[in-house]
Amino acid sequence: MAKLTTRNEDYSKWYNELVVKADLAENSGVRGSMVIKPYGYAIWEKIQAELDKKFKETGHQNAYFPLFVPKSLFEAEEKNAEGFAKECAVVTHYRLKTDPNNPHKLIVDPEAKLEEELIVRPTSEAIIWNTYKSWIQSYRDLPILINQWANVVRWEMRTRLFLRTAEFLWQEGHTAHATKEEAIEETEKMLEVYADVVENFMAIPVIKGFKTPTERFAGADETYCIEAMMQDGKALQAGTSHFLGQNFAKAFDVKFTNREGKQEFAWATSWGVSTRLMGALIMTHSDDFGLVLPPKLAPIQVVIVPIFKGEEQLAEISVVANDIFDKLKAKGISVKYDDRTEYKPGWKFAEYELKGVPLRIAMGARDLENKTVEIARRDNLTKEVRSLENLENYIEELLITVQNDIYKKAENYREEHITKVDSYEEFKKVLEEKGGFISAHWDGTAEEEEQIKNETKATIRCIPLDAKEEQGISLVSGKPSSKRVLFAKAY
Amino acid sequence: MAKLTTRNEDYSKWYNELVVKADLAENSGVRGSMVIKPYGYAIWEKIQAELDKKFKETGHQNAYFPLFVPKSLFEAEEKNAEGFAKECAVVTHYRLKTDPNNPHKLIVDPEAKLEEELIVRPTSEAIIWNTYKSWIQSYRDLPILINQWANVVRWEMRTRLFLRTAEFLWQEGHTAHATKEEAIEETEKMLEVYADVVENFMAIPVIKGFKTPTERFAGADETYCIEAMMQDGKALQAGTSHFLGQNFAKAFDVKFTNREGKQEFAWATSWGVSTRLMGALIMTHSDDFGLVLPPKLAPIQVVIVPIFKGEEQLAEISVVANDIFDKLKAKGISVKYDDRTEYKPGWKFAEYELKGVPLRIAMGARDLENKTVEIARRDNLTKEVRSLENLENYIEELLITVQNDIYKKAENYREEHITKVDSYEEFKKVLEEKGGFISAHWDGTAEEEEQIKNETKATIRCIPLDAKEEQGISLVSGKPSSKRVLFAKAY
Repeated sequence: MAKLTTRNEDYSKWYNELVVKADLAENSGVRGSMVIKPYGYAIWEKIQAELDKKFKETGHQNAYFPLFVPKSLFEAEEKNAEGFAKECAVVTHYRLKTDPNNPHKLIVDPEAKLEEELIVRPTSEAIIWNTYKSWIQSYRDLPILINQWANVVRWEMRTRLFLRTAEFLWQEGHTAHATKEEAIEETEKMLEVYADVVENFMAIPVIKGFKTPTERFAGADETYCIEAMMQDGKALQAGTSHFLGQNFAKAFDVKFTNREGKQEFAWATSWGVSTRLMGALIMTHSDDFGLVLPPKLAPIQVVIVPIFKGEEQLAEISVVANDIFDKLKAKGISVKYDDRTEYKPGWKFAEYELKGVPLRIAMGARDLENKTVEIARRDNLTKEVRSLENLENYIEELLITVQNDIYKKAENYREEHITKVDSYEEFKKVLEEKGGFISAHWDGTAEEEEQIKNETKATIRCIPLDAKEEQGISLVSGKPSSKRVLFAKAY
Repeated sequence: MAKLTTRNEDYSKWYNELVVKADLAENSGVRGSMVIKPYGYAIWEKIQAELDKKFKETGHQNAYFPLFVPKSLFEAEEKNAEGFAKECAVVTHYRLKTDPNNPHKLIVDPEAKLEEELIVRPTSEAIIWNTYKSWIQSYRDLPILINQWANVVRWEMRTRLFLRTAEFLWQEGHTAHATKEEAIEETEKMLEVYADVVENFMAIPVIKGFKTPTERFAGADETYCIEAMMQDGKALQAGTSHFLGQNFAKAFDVKFTNREGKQEFAWATSWGVSTRLMGALIMTHSDDFGLVLPPKLAPIQVVIVPIFKGEEQLAEISVVANDIFDKLKAKGISVKYDDRTEYKPGWKFAEYELKGVPLRIAMGARDLENKTVEIARRDNLTKEVRSLENLENYIEELLITVQNDIYKKAENYREEHITKVDSYEEFKKVLEEKGGFISAHWDGTAEEEEQIKNETKATIRCIPLDAKEEQGISLVSGKPSSKRVLFAKAY
C-alpha cells in the first residue's frame, strides 16, 4: 500500500488521499457529486442514528417533503431566495426523446418544457412553509416539530469530498411555534443537541456562538452555530440552528388564532447538519497513517488479527480468538476476526490503521503459550501485552478511555490554538504563523468584517455564547467593543 | 369527524380520503409530488428498518450514489434508457437571477446552461455501473453487494398518493457477481427477503413469480416479482428483483479477470421496493372506519383511554393506567396513554380507529372497581373485558394473534379471489363480475398478452414460480400452453 502524503507535506492532499484510500468516498461521473462508499456510509449511518435518537427524544418526528420547489414558491421569501439563487439546479423539462440524427442517443424533448421551472431544493423552508400553511389554524396546532433526512443540491464551482459537494445528504429540522420565546428556545435546544452529539459522540470539541448578520442563513433573524477546529488550524462550521422569526410565515401567509382569539403569524426555526460532519471527523482526529475513529462511531471497534505459521497454528489461535470474539460481541462491541490467509499480518495492520479501527488485538504462538494478546491503540499508537483473563472487560473500558482521550487531544489542540490578540498587526502575524482561532475585538460593523476578510481571508466564525463582557478596541476601526469574537480561516 | 366514504361506495375515493384523514400523506404544491406526514413516515421508517436489517443479514452494505445522471451515462444502456426516457426530469441550468423586469422575481439565468443535461435518477443502474467500473478488476473484487436508500423521480401524468407519484422514496440494491449462477441466486434470494418482510411483517400475502418479457424492467434479462391482491381485487406489484445479465457490464465496459485469468463481463442484479408498499399496506387491511395496521409496524400498538367524570376519577384511573403503561413499555410494546381532557372518549375511539392502532384499552369507574379493563381489537372490532392480572402478558400474546389474524384474513380474501378459467368468455365474465386474479393458460406471445390487455385491461401479473406443469390451451389464440399464469387488473 502506498503511503499517504503527510499532513505537513500537504494537508489538503493528505485529506483527499485519506478519504479515497480509507474507502470513505470518491468523486463520481457527475461534476461536484460524490459517491459515499460503504465504509464511509456506515460511519454516516451511526451519526444519523445518534442524531435521530436525540431528535425523537426532544419531541421531533420525521417526515418527507418534495425534492422539487416550484420557482414561484422558491422566490416567495426574498432574502432566502436571493441567498440561494446563484447555486440552484433547475429542472426545465420532463421528457427525453430519441435523437432524430442518431437513434442510439437521446435529446431533451423541446415539447416537454415545464410551464413553471422546478428548483432542486437547496434547503426546504419554502416547500415546507407552503405546506404548514394548511396545517396551522390555531395555537392548538402548534408547535410543529418536524425533521427531514434528505439530499439537497447547491451548485458549487469548487468542490471537495464531504466538505463542499453539489449534492449532499443532511437533516433539516423545521419547526413552527406560537411565540417568539418558544421558537428561540427551540433554536437553542437544537444547538445543544448538535453540540452534545458532535462532542460526546464524534469526540469533536465545538464552540457555540452566534453568526454575525453577514454570515447568517438567508432568511434568518439569528443563526446559532457550532464551530470546530481542524488540525491545520482552520475552522469548520459543524452545524447551524436558525431562528427565522416570522419571515417565512409572512412570505407564505401562515397565520393562526392565538389563545386570545387573535390572528398572528407563526414563529419558525430551522436547523441542519450534513455529511460535512464526515469531513470534520476526518480532519479533527486522523493522522499520517490514516483515519482515527472515536469508538462510538467506528463501524468496527476491535479487530483481531492472528499471527501464525501454517494451518495448524491458525486453528489453535482461532479457538482462542473466536472465544474473545464471542465475549466481545456479547458485550455489544463491534468486532471482526480477520483470519484471511491471503494477506500477511503486516498488511492487515496497515489496512486497519488506515481504516481507523480503534483497537487491534494481535495473537501469535507465544501469546497462545502465555495466554496473552497484544493490544494496539489506533489513537496514540501504543501497544501492550495483556492476559486473556477478563480481557473483554478491559477492552470495554479501554474503548471508553480511547473515546475520552481522542476528545481531550482535540480539545488540547484547540485550546493551544485560540489566541487573544489586541492589534491588527498581531492578528495578521498569528494568523500567518500559528493559525487557529483568534479572539479579538470587533466593532460590530459589516464594513470592518469585510475589510478583515478581504485583507486576511479570516472571517468571524462566531460571537461565542459565553463571550465575557470586556472593554476593548476593535482591530481596524479602533472603535470601542464590549466582547471578543472568534476569527479564523475556514472550510 | 366526518365519516369516510365507504369502500363499496367508491373504493378509490375511500383510499384517497383515508390516506389524508389518517395523516399518512397529502398532495403538495409540486405537481405529482406528495408530502409524507409524520404518522405515515413513522410507518415507512418501520418498514425501512426491517428491510435494512434483512439486507445487512444477507451481507449487503449501504452506500450513496449521485441524484443526477449525465445524459451520456444515462443513454449508455439503451434498453434501460429507452424504458425511462419518457418520464425523466431534466436539469438544464444551474443558476437563477433576478428578473430584470421585476426585482422581486427570479428567472433562470440563460448564461448558466449546462453543457450536458443532467437526468434526475429514475433508477440508478447507469450511475452505479459507471462507478463499479473502477471498483472491479479481479474476481477477488466480487461480489459487490450494495444497497441505497434514496429518492427517485419518474414523471407521471396521473398520480395517486403512495401508489404513483413523480418523486418517491425507495431502496435499490445493485450487486455485481463473477458468475451468472451467483447473480441469479442473488436475484432469487432478494425476492425471498421481500416476500418474507411483506408477508411476515406487513401481513400481506404475496405470490412470487416471473414477469413476462413485456413487463420486464428495462434492461433486465429476467424480472422476478411479488404480487399482492388489494381488497378491490386488483393486483399491486409490491417488489421486483432483476437479473440484469451482463447488459450493464457491457454498456459500461465492466470487465474482470476471472479465476482462470481471462477477462469477463460482470453479472448484475438490481432489486427495489418503494413507498408504494404503503399503498399496499393501506389497501390490503383497512376498512370503512380507517386504517388497520399489523402490530409489527404500528407506531402505536396499544392506546389506553380513560373514561372518567371529573379530575378525581381521572387521577384514580391514571394510577392504574400508568401501571399498565409501564408494564407494557417494559415488554417493548409501543403504548400511549391518552389522558387529554379536551377530547371525549368517543372522539378518541374514532381517532385511534382511523389511525389503525391495533389494541385499545379503555378504563372507567366500574373497571376500577372490578379491577378490569375493556380491550378492543381494531382488526375485527371485537371487545372483551379482562382482569388486570397478567394483563401485560395477555396483551403481548394478543398482539401476535392480531398480526396472524390480519395476515390470514388477507390470505383468505386472496384465495377466494383467485379463479381458474379455461375460456376467454369466462375470463371476461370473472374479471367483470368477481375481479381478483385469474389463473389461465397463455400461449407465451406478446401478441396475445397485448390483445387481452387492450380488450380487458387485465395484464399478466406473473408466471408464478410454483406454477405446475399442466397441458392447456391458451385463452385467445388456442395454442397449447404448459402452465397457467396470473392475470389481473393492476395498480
